[in-house]
Amino acid sequence: MSEIDPPVIGDAFGAALARCWASGARPGAAFEIVERDDGYIGVTDMARYFGGRDSWSDLERAALADVRGRILDVGCGAGRHAVPLRQDGHEVVGLDSSPLAVAITIERGAPAVSGAAQAVPAGIGRFDTLLMLGGNLGLLADPETAVATLTELARITTPGGQLLGTGMDPYRTEDPAHLAYHDRNRARDRLAGQLRMRLRHGRLATPWFDYLLAAADELTDLITSTPWTLDSIEEHGAGYALKLDLAASPPAAVRHSPKTS
Amino acid sequence: MSEIDPPVIGDAFGAALARCWASGARPGAAFEIVERDDGYIGVTDMARYFGGRDSWSDLERAALADVRGRILDVGCGAGRHAVPLRQDGHEVVGLDSSPLAVAITIERGAPAVSGAAQAVPAGIGRFDTLLMLGGNLGLLADPETAVATLTELARITTPGGQLLGTGMDPYRTEDPAHLAYHDRNRARDRLAGQLRMRLRHGRLATPWFDYLLAAADELTDLITSTPWTLDSIEEHGAGYALKLDLAASPPAAVRHSPKTS
Repeated sequence: MSEIDPPVIGDAFGAALARCWASGARPGAAFEIVERDDGYIGVTDMARYFGGRDSWSDLERAALADVRGRILDVGCGAGRHAVPLRQDGHEVVGLDSSPLAVAITIERGAPAVSGAAQAVPAGIGRFDTLLMLGGNLGLLADPETAVATLTELARITTPGGQLLGTGMDPYRTEDPAHLAYHDRNRARDRLAGQLRMRLRHGRLATPWFDYLLAAADELTDLITSTPWTLDSIEEHGAGYALKLDLAASPPAAVRHSPKTS
Repeated sequence: MSEIDPPVIGDAFGAALARCWASGARPGAAFEIVERDDGYIGVTDMARYFGGRDSWSDLERAALADVRGRILDVGCGAGRHAVPLRQDGHEVVGLDSSPLAVAITIERGAPAVSGAAQAVPAGIGRFDTLLMLGGNLGLLADPETAVATLTELARITTPGGQLLGTGMDPYRTEDPAHLAYHDRNRARDRLAGQLRMRLRHGRLATPWFDYLLAAADELTDLITSTPWTLDSIEEHGAGYALKLDLAASPPAAVRHSPKTS
């Protein structure tokens, strides 16, 4: 038997997105293939990244009605939120770690730049609204990275700015494979829903990375260690939306205001 | 970083088929995930295994118009051919290495048994027509296995019986990933289209196995080393259908007939 070669490390997400886009965003043309570190593999259709306004969940719709000022769409994908926001006249910038996703978002009509939530590009400026919709709170990765990332994102947010994000509670499943995976994670001192995964497309695979499925209260606990304060939580089935606020003035200024002096 | 677990060896094909069947054979419900030994991964919708008569290709339609007598459907899957043949009053038996595929074929109305083309179950009897449609000539695996398998299948075929199969010419592609794979195989003294692959579903994976994409003339060369003779080839794009015949009398009987004595 000949040897089995590993995939080539590359922009598997962007390549799948580009194939779907080239097909006219037709369902069945390209797939998101997720491999998890317990050997589990899952597939969803890439066409969902190209859904129109009618594809927005109720939680997303409510969040998008709340945007104001200059907007950063963290993990913009194919621009499912950034492009309609731009069409509505908002000043919006997409951010995605996939160069092909950035190119597709720009082609579809919204400005976008390459970069991760953990390392926003220099010179990107400040934003009044940060979006992490489509479950993108998962990009917070793990507890330690979540705190560092939210702190980094606060740095590029204007005083009084907001972060609107959606996440998925992993505990609402009854799938034995997922429940066994939670136990596997706990045995390794990881949060139950702290997925280690990679995406594959053709011969490409992304590096392995962590993606955080956390219960809303697991996330809000972490938020207390960041510059953000929780404004509201909306829940809908296993999904939830968080609205986080940044203080209107930097804490130092508050500390010296007449009321607290 | 924690370790990456390999998938669990099992009936990944049948599990994907069963999920699709449980969904009412709805497109988008379950996928055939094929991993190749060069790190390539591909996805197709399992719903194609449940297509009706209108899903038959022209080559399949012609072959199915040619069936006679007792029929063995080698690699029956979900019974896409066996079930309609049965409905038409033919005596047909499905054969599949996936126990779940066998169960689904039976549930859908055609008899079926577990087993591989390379190892047909004892007591299965003899057949007048063997079907290897849906590209199932690929189950011949590699040149050596192809000869052994066709010889084994001749053993359960009545004198004068026929084998109707379809295959796919691998050389009709311009996909650089596939062309590079052909070179990789040649460098290992394998036929260019001799795929080494496994199927994955959830935490399951089949063992790695060979699946033969051969040009029609590569296959017909191999057939000369078996009890079968080539009756006809039909080509349609990259696909082709072979009709093979078994001699009406065993060779030994022919040798002692008046004409040759």
